[in-house]
Amino acid sequence: MRPMTMMKAAIFVEPNRIVLDEKPIPDVGPLDALVRITTTTICGTDVHILKGEYPVERGLTIGHEPVGVIEKLGSAVQGYTEGQRVIAGAISPSGYSNACLCGCHSQDGPGTKHGFRPMGGWRFGNTIDGAQAEFLLVPDAMVNLAPIPDGLTDEQVLMCPDIMSTGFSGAESGSVRIGDTVAVFAQGPIGLCATAGARLMGATTIIGVDSVPERMEIARKMGADHVVDFTKGDVVAEIMRLTDGRGVDVAIEALGRQETFEAALRILRPGGTLSSLGVYSNDLTIPLDAFSAGLGDNKIVTTLCPGGKERMRRLMDVIASQRLDTTPLVTHRYRLDEVEDAYDLFSHQRDGVLKVAIQP
Amino acid sequence: MRPMTMMKAAIFVEPNRIVLDEKPIPDVGPLDALVRITTTTICGTDVHILKGEYPVERGLTIGHEPVGVIEKLGSAVQGYTEGQRVIAGAISPSGYSNACLCGCHSQDGPGTKHGFRPMGGWRFGNTIDGAQAEFLLVPDAMVNLAPIPDGLTDEQVLMCPDIMSTGFSGAESGSVRIGDTVAVFAQGPIGLCATAGARLMGATTIIGVDSVPERMEIARKMGADHVVDFTKGDVVAEIMRLTDGRGVDVAIEALGRQETFEAALRILRPGGTLSSLGVYSNDLTIPLDAFSAGLGDNKIVTTLCPGGKERMRRLMDVIASQRLDTTPLVTHRYRLDEVEDAYDLFSHQRDGVLKVAIQP
Amino acid sequence: MRPMTMMKAAIFVEPNRIVLDEKPIPDVGPLDALVRITTTTICGTDVHILKGEYPVERGLTIGHEPVGVIEKLGSAVQGYTEGQRVIAGAISPSGYSNACLCGCHSQDGPGTKHGFRPMGGWRFGNTIDGAQAEFLLVPDAMVNLAPIPDGLTDEQVLMCPDIMSTGFSGAESGSVRIGDTVAVFAQGPIGLCATAGARLMGATTIIGVDSVPERMEIARKMGADHVVDFTKGDVVAEIMRLTDGRGVDVAIEALGRQETFEAALRILRPGGTLSSLGVYSNDLTIPLDAFSAGLGDNKIVTTLCPGGKERMRRLMDVIASQRLDTTPLVTHRYRLDEVEDAYDLFSHQRDGVLKVAIQP
Amino acid sequence: MRPMTMMKAAIFVEPNRIVLDEKPIPDVGPLDALVRITTTTICGTDVHILKGEYPVERGLTIGHEPVGVIEKLGSAVQGYTEGQRVIAGAISPSGYSNACLCGCHSQDGPGTKHGFRPMGGWRFGNTIDGAQAEFLLVPDAMVNLAPIPDGLTDEQVLMCPDIMSTGFSGAESGSVRIGDTVAVFAQGPIGLCATAGARLMGATTIIGVDSVPERMEIARKMGADHVVDFTKGDVVAEIMRLTDGRGVDVAIEALGRQETFEAALRILRPGGTLSSLGVYSNDLTIPLDAFSAGLGDNKIVTTLCPGGKERMRRLMDVIASQRLDTTPLVTHRYRLDEVEDAYDLFSHQRDGVLKVAIQP
Repeated sequence: MRPMTMMKAAIFVEPNRIVLDEKPIPDVGPLDALVRITTTTICGTDVHILKGEYPVERGLTIGHEPVGVIEKLGSAVQGYTEGQRVIAGAISPSGYSNACLCGCHSQDGPGTKHGFRPMGGWRFGNTIDGAQAEFLLVPDAMVNLAPIPDGLTDEQVLMCPDIMSTGFSGAESGSVRIGDTVAVFAQGPIGLCATAGARLMGATTIIGVDSVPERMEIARKMGADHVVDFTKGDVVAEIMRLTDGRGVDVAIEALGRQETFEAALRILRPGGTLSSLGVYSNDLTIPLDAFSAGLGDNKIVTTLCPGGKERMRRLMDVIASQRLDTTPLVTHRYRLDEVEDAYDLFSHQRDGVLKVAIQP
Repeated sequence: MRPMTMMKAAIFVEPNRIVLDEKPIPDVGPLDALVRITTTTICGTDVHILKGEYPVERGLTIGHEPVGVIEKLGSAVQGYTEGQRVIAGAISPSGYSNACLCGCHSQDGPGTKHGFRPMGGWRFGNTIDGAQAEFLLVPDAMVNLAPIPDGLTDEQVLMCPDIMSTGFSGAESGSVRIGDTVAVFAQGPIGLCATAGARLMGATTIIGVDSVPERMEIARKMGADHVVDFTKGDVVAEIMRLTDGRGVDVAIEALGRQETFEAALRILRPGGTLSSLGVYSNDLTIPLDAFSAGLGDNKIVTTLCPGGKERMRRLMDVIASQRLDTTPLVTHRYRLDEVEDAYDLFSHQRDGVLKVAIQP
Repeated sequence: MRPMTMMKAAIFVEPNRIVLDEKPIPDVGPLDALVRITTTTICGTDVHILKGEYPVERGLTIGHEPVGVIEKLGSAVQGYTEGQRVIAGAISPSGYSNACLCGCHSQDGPGTKHGFRPMGGWRFGNTIDGAQAEFLLVPDAMVNLAPIPDGLTDEQVLMCPDIMSTGFSGAESGSVRIGDTVAVFAQGPIGLCATAGARLMGATTIIGVDSVPERMEIARKMGADHVVDFTKGDVVAEIMRLTDGRGVDVAIEALGRQETFEAALRILRPGGTLSSLGVYSNDLTIPLDAFSAGLGDNKIVTTLCPGGKERMRRLMDVIASQRLDTTPLVTHRYRLDEVEDAYDLFSHQRDGVLKVAIQP
Repeated sequence: MRPMTMMKAAIFVEPNRIVLDEKPIPDVGPLDALVRITTTTICGTDVHILKGEYPVERGLTIGHEPVGVIEKLGSAVQGYTEGQRVIAGAISPSGYSNACLCGCHSQDGPGTKHGFRPMGGWRFGNTIDGAQAEFLLVPDAMVNLAPIPDGLTDEQVLMCPDIMSTGFSGAESGSVRIGDTVAVFAQGPIGLCATAGARLMGATTIIGVDSVPERMEIARKMGADHVVDFTKGDVVAEIMRLTDGRGVDVAIEALGRQETFEAALRILRPGGTLSSLGVYSNDLTIPLDAFSAGLGDNKIVTTLCPGGKERMRRLMDVIASQRLDTTPLVTHRYRLDEVEDAYDLFSHQRDGVLKVAIQP
């Protein structure tokens, strides 16, 4: 019999090996909350970790998309009850750093001298144990725990912690306005949510770019007016044609590669904004002509997934008010015991997978 | 005797040849104004034209920084009087394009289908005859003519049409706030005005970067708290030291080269903004680490010199209210007859030249 | 036989008398366009004029919501063709005033010294002849004429010049964000469009307030999640109940009365914005408690209908992309000959009228 | 002998009675810090409390402007050391409420269901014991304690917690831009800092309004270009004259009365912003004409003093960089033992008092 103090967790052992193993259930500090995970999922970033492309410490529990139930509250945590259903954002800011105090929660560096650290708000499955486990310790619980509205299922809110928050931020950081023309490069889970976000903010012409038929189809359901297959001709020329030569107000990059970044830049109208969500693996090149030699009044904006309970509350409101249904993104389901199979499927992008749901 | 209908003008003949020649004084259309130039100057962009690096039509009159007196008003122009002293911005928008109507005046494309064109608002000395002449025809005069407040000399307002408008926009597009730390790369005329702009907007730590002693000295007068000589050690390391490891809130690039662009990116704090003013001549590289792989919540913003009479009015107010004195930037004076000498000095950056004043 | 140089027009004769009469077809100046009206409508403001509550000159043609065909272009107007179907905004800015050049087009004062004038952009049916006529002279045509996209009928775009532009601006000036809770006071044509605008911008809880059953019903179709009948109990208490005691992020006032203004203020959450669209007839009172004694970080923002061709282009894009259908707002149709009957019906708000379509 | 566990404090006993008495030195919870006060001051709000106009609990220690030394840190507080010199803002947000997480720190309601509460971030001398004492317990210390830069005296930073933060916010919330014309109504300590803030943000015409000669004189030193004595003629007419009939871009109200609020509204240009800092005691009236019947594209914005350590860091940077010296505002000095005398002088505004420094 497994002792009560141990739990199962998906652990990074070494590049190309994430395995299910046992770990002690963590102790709960005064500001923490222990959450019993009921559903979680795998992110593209986890695959980067798996492949050794993004370094984390060996022995770390992976995962940053938790849905669960409060098991135990720290002694100083108020405003919650044990047994409450909650989510926490992939990014879990402290609330007290200088970064947080100027609204830059994702770049939180609570332990640094000046309070800013690149990606410092990303802790789960990066600098502390993550959500692909039976239990998750949530630090700064009063900043990060967001109660799930009655009537919403785990799968309905499963995209909120990362995919939907990141995707929407592509449209938000692009300052999409009513009547805008927006192109979204790549219609994976984040790109699809960027498409949905642009739609929610009032864009009237939304152009999704991908080549996988299933993704192109779901892109239309999420709000794309046009879907361009980049394997069939020149995507820049096609978007210029669709916009009657004008270009787009906002281009959202949701893949993280030179080709998409460059195409996004080339289709911007003068004065337009490239809103970048991709996680890049290489240096980028800005072609002189695509950049109007620096004189085009253009913006390039990058955004890391916004977190914190207020963000989560708003995203769950989007679901509860039926503005958007993200459950079609969940294409496969696994038990936590099968997490290695889930990684196998997801990392090879087999079987039309978009997102998997994992339930301990 | 030179006929009354002819005027002298500095004309682009071919690469490396701008010469003073005669041209007809232009006819005045209903919306135009003819301005008798009293003072003008040469811009770095004009040197790009001279060298053939930026193509313009042969026979074009160069120059986009006019100070003068209204000689003749078009039949439909109201609100001005002949004999009035005026300036016009380097960028002369139409006021009626879609670009203008959404506040993007510099990217004005009045003749295009959708009203946006990269740099389309820049007409003088680019797509129409410019200001280095005895007379300048100003199109859309009611949009572009700004009366000079009483008591200001030509040289006091000579920087308004371009240098000061562009330099200030570096701080403005960077959204400099009270208490910000700002670095300005290169302390040529535009960088100096960016330094002054950051100061005017409330930055409390301003770091100028250059290597020319005279420019470093004037940088302090324009508002820099620190001046870093990039030839004496690692400028990135020095700025990180000056900011106690935090980096800057806003980095302004005012040179147009890979080294400065890259250094500006490297010293940004997470969430910081690179405000780019430089005119680049080559593709740019964004190093992966300097960009936090796209996850640093950073912005890269480019701005073309804002124009139009309201912008000019505000800039002249800065001068009139003694918030800033740009006359120290005028280091040399020439008559229009000597314009070829002026180009020679300015294009070779001899004798500590910052800006020249040219008077027909 | 009516001479070719005369046209029919609805003319303000004196308070309580707007009559159909004949007027000369206006001459076309170099920057003007003559538009043959195909459809127009009556606005609540016209009723204020009719009643003598808003003063205009006797003999003025009323109306500021034109849909038509270009009959004749001024000699300096480029980019259009005669015979083209167009609309123009209720507000017709000049494009060249200082107000326009700083993005404040509706407060355009082209003839004033400094270029700002309250409501100065509103010319049709206010300071120049309006649209309830066979022909309309559009000044500054290149700023104001917006071609109608193929396939859209007159009635589909009839709300764009004023109702939809004004209503949407209520949501836009309130800076509605994804996940916001918004209340809209009064669900007349403008309030209904404010409701639709809040929906388009991503509000997830939208509360419409009215008491007329037909309006309450159409409010739901336009995007309201809840509709509160203010005649049945305390509207403030009800909205606080619906928002779980939190209040709303944005309250839009679309009636112009003390009761609605005050209720809108009372339901704001701390930090929330009151976006006011109403045309008030009396001084307003800000109750001390509703205003947190000035310490609630609240905003009160007023907006006059945005105009200009770019605005019109964007609004027609909303229609063309099927984001919104405003034709249900057109409840009655009249020929121009029957304009007096139309005023009679509309001014008495009989027969469930929302908007009338008038066709010469 | 006074026991070590007791301290002196200025306590609200009943309306018109604030007395110096003894209280236990508070216990330090895990997130708290105990600060030994070295300098503090009296605010106009404290006088409202004294007079019974703003209700607080009897027995409360008054004061919200602390300068001191960390005496003891809570067990969970990191990043500080005992003995460190610090200030805390008058507003001390929790960092974890929904209000804080959307940047609305002053309206923090950590104990409320939705995390927003009017003025909820104001705790010192309002809902918890304040700073006019030997010791102050600072809650959420990691959010609120800001180390004082080396070389700055207590009096140099004494205005940061409230006066300077509030005054600057008047300019910030008004979005003052380079070239703006700004009027500031009342040149008391907050109005003077609003004047300085407008200057720091680039306003080129700043008009201070007051009638006390000493204040009018210091207004010029803080940045006013013109000072209008409202007792000598019509202040609205005079400001319209000074602005050549145009009105101001931003009017800052820093008194809290109908006359100043109304005058501020009347002098706004169309599209201008009234930034209100005053604490009002009565309902306000918005005159119909001053409000352009709601059609002037105007904004009325209220701001409660921004707090938190990042705000304090920035304000102290303003002092340290010599952009502003607020020590001329300190006109009188008292020991804590003399606090009742200090209240007597300050509440009667005798002897040209601006601010008093009180040292335990």
